[in-house]
Amino acid sequence: MVIEIDFNSSEAIYMQLRNQIILGIATSQLQEGETLPSVRQMAEHIGINMHTVNKAYTVLKQEGFLKLDRRKGAVIALDIDKLRALEVLRQDLRVMLAWGSCKKISREEVHQLIDEIYEEY
Amino acid sequence: MVIEIDFNSSEAIYMQLRNQIILGIATSQLQEGETLPSVRQMAEHIGINMHTVNKAYTVLKQEGFLKLDRRKGAVIALDIDKLRALEVLRQDLRVMLAWGSCKKISREEVHQLIDEIYEEY
Repeated sequence: MVIEIDFNSSEAIYMQLRNQIILGIATSQLQEGETLPSVRQMAEHIGINMHTVNKAYTVLKQEGFLKLDRRKGAVIALDIDKLRALEVLRQDLRVMLAWGSCKKISREEVHQLIDEIYEEY
Repeated sequence: MVIEIDFNSSEAIYMQLRNQIILGIATSQLQEGETLPSVRQMAEHIGINMHTVNKAYTVLKQEGFLKLDRRKGAVIALDIDKLRALEVLRQDLRVMLAWGSCKKISREEVHQLIDEIYEEY
């Protein structure tokens, strides 16, 4: 899987890395049980600080996407608590739709965007 | 408008403040042209650092929600570039739907969540 980091983006690099790994899992480029490169390898590969990779892996662990194994390293392991996930998604979507609403994006346009994104898969 | 900050949340305080102001604008509790409390007042009111308020105001300015006027302070001013806003929303939703998909949340459930959030307004 190719990790693309935009060093000109205003989004923090650890969040970009976290997002790319989540997109990789959602699109089956990364599979349950698969081991990610070590913190050092990933840092060298992308050309970023080891602390930044570590932060991304820690966030992914907290969010239930990774297990950090002392010997195996970072392994994709999905912790699916669907009720909790729906609540997290609801909170995030609430802010995002408010943002869109301020920018005059309608409910219909949001539904359409959702469908367009699912068609990409 | 009441600003509520959760000091136990993992979300950065400046982002919580930014989100609350966006929710306030979307729900018409804050109107175009209205002046927000000064950085010092807001910081004292919520009990947070002035730098944190400043960071929230700066992000809101960059995102086209505020104008920072030397005399008047932070004034709600919506910069609506709808094409650009749709692109930003698409990027954010793409990551969010991937996140949900890893948690086994279906496309139909996302559409339903969207409708439920709009019904809250």
